[in-house]
Amino acid sequence: MKYCFGVDIGGTTVKLGLFTAGGEIVDKWEIKTRTENQGEAVLPDIAEALNAKLAEKKIGRDEVEGIGVGVPAPVDAEGVVQNTANLGWGYKEVKREMEELSGMRAEIGNDANVAALGEMWLGAGKGRKNIIMVTLGTGVGGGIIIDGKPLVGAHGAGGEIGHLCVNYEETDHCGCGNTGCLEQYASATGITRLANIRLAKDDTSSVLRGQEVSAKTVFDAVKAEDAVAKEIAEEFGKYLGHAMANLAAVADPSAIVIGGGVSKAGEVLIEYVEKNFKERAFFANKDTEFVLATLGNDAGICGAAKLILS
Amino acid sequence: MKYCFGVDIGGTTVKLGLFTAGGEIVDKWEIKTRTENQGEAVLPDIAEALNAKLAEKKIGRDEVEGIGVGVPAPVDAEGVVQNTANLGWGYKEVKREMEELSGMRAEIGNDANVAALGEMWLGAGKGRKNIIMVTLGTGVGGGIIIDGKPLVGAHGAGGEIGHLCVNYEETDHCGCGNTGCLEQYASATGITRLANIRLAKDDTSSVLRGQEVSAKTVFDAVKAEDAVAKEIAEEFGKYLGHAMANLAAVADPSAIVIGGGVSKAGEVLIEYVEKNFKERAFFANKDTEFVLATLGNDAGICGAAKLILS
Repeated sequence: MKYCFGVDIGGTTVKLGLFTAGGEIVDKWEIKTRTENQGEAVLPDIAEALNAKLAEKKIGRDEVEGIGVGVPAPVDAEGVVQNTANLGWGYKEVKREMEELSGMRAEIGNDANVAALGEMWLGAGKGRKNIIMVTLGTGVGGGIIIDGKPLVGAHGAGGEIGHLCVNYEETDHCGCGNTGCLEQYASATGITRLANIRLAKDDTSSVLRGQEVSAKTVFDAVKAEDAVAKEIAEEFGKYLGHAMANLAAVADPSAIVIGGGVSKAGEVLIEYVEKNFKERAFFANKDTEFVLATLGNDAGICGAAKLILS
Repeated sequence: MKYCFGVDIGGTTVKLGLFTAGGEIVDKWEIKTRTENQGEAVLPDIAEALNAKLAEKKIGRDEVEGIGVGVPAPVDAEGVVQNTANLGWGYKEVKREMEELSGMRAEIGNDANVAALGEMWLGAGKGRKNIIMVTLGTGVGGGIIIDGKPLVGAHGAGGEIGHLCVNYEETDHCGCGNTGCLEQYASATGITRLANIRLAKDDTSSVLRGQEVSAKTVFDAVKAEDAVAKEIAEEFGKYLGHAMANLAAVADPSAIVIGGGVSKAGEVLIEYVEKNFKERAFFANKDTEFVLATLGNDAGICGAAKLILS
């Protein structure tokens, strides 16, 4: 029996998983991300946790294929990070350090790309080799899997789906400095923004008035057939659907997987996106399937493990 | 010395090249594309031409790595074509047939993807592994090279750059049935269309008046400092630059190669595109280089040969 580890480094916790090469999760657990002193403890803490797990499970190091690691930053093909927003790292040769600390082979990827790989391997994209995953959370992230591998790109910045421009008329700015980014319309904060703009436009009655507006309350109101909420969902669906149509014309996926907190709204969300997608998709891509992500927070450790097995 | 063949099938001629594995062109020539009877003669004609070349050059079949073939249609990862607009083929297992007819290994790719691979190997993208090539001809074609390989996708339809939507307000239709496709603004016919719309708008004097307007006359007028022509070039540059900014956010190339007949306008064209690209590019992609294609009509045979060597 061969094993591998999948590690998903976040700003507050590191998720770790022990997998069989066949894709069974043997064990999963978390440790704290210690970001003080430029995050110098992050990788040693991981190496220690993995070696302790091997001892606990009585697994020899020669039975382990290696360690896959997802990092919240662009990672180049050599496993090098230039900078991270929330781990404290500057330039860091993550692959080399992880291998030296652990004595095992390591492969490093960007966390969003790695999550997409996880959904392809064990989740909503199972059995496919070409998928786009879009993660609707506080921001919009994503990963593009081409022929079974994440699209990494020249700077490790491939798959920055949230910063596709979908509205050239927009005057409000995105966090990245541009205007009209998908993230301004399709993230949790983007949907709240769309809702507040719509509610301020006139005084049509809506269950959304008199409560704190969020992506969740908007989609709850859509399910309750609230007309204003449906208008907001339609606008969200237009921007996300049109962005996915553009992306499909170049990446030609067999499925688009939608995950992240906002996707908890469920199938109703897919309907708004898919309808607008079909309206704009290039003919070769009209039959692209839309599916909800199924792995939730485990996508990262699953995809990280798959980095080692690819 | 090892050799390989690169074959570029067009609607009227088939271009063929004999290469060393190191990338030297030993010989290149053309044969007619016989499309009658559902194009049944196309592949046998190619096999005959290649075997005749081996006899002529006294090269043994065991010295040949194989045959790469570019086809003007989507081609899936198994070398199968579903349909072609101008060869007469319906469903065709091109890889299998080519191998049976020639007795050599064959790899098949879409012609636009293959041309992009050619520019990466021996042309403007030399030394790089991640490029986008956009071909501005009658239409707008393109190919995306990720980590040294063409992005093929689930249906073999990856890299359909010409059908990125760049203007959601457009009311005129593209040949594909959609509205606002890049091809409507950045192809030779698209530039002519932009020029005619601009010239009809008012009667500002311009050297473009009283002559037949084309992409060439527009860029010639730009070089002659014609103000109206510069406005047209600016609009062209805006649409192409913004489309490339969106594409770079997901594909993260190190360079964007511009080829096709329109690119003969030269560096002046790059300036208009690059300026608008920088305005919209995601920060990680601001330094993406723009370069003119250098292989011209040889890009296809070069990239086809590289299919075999990858």
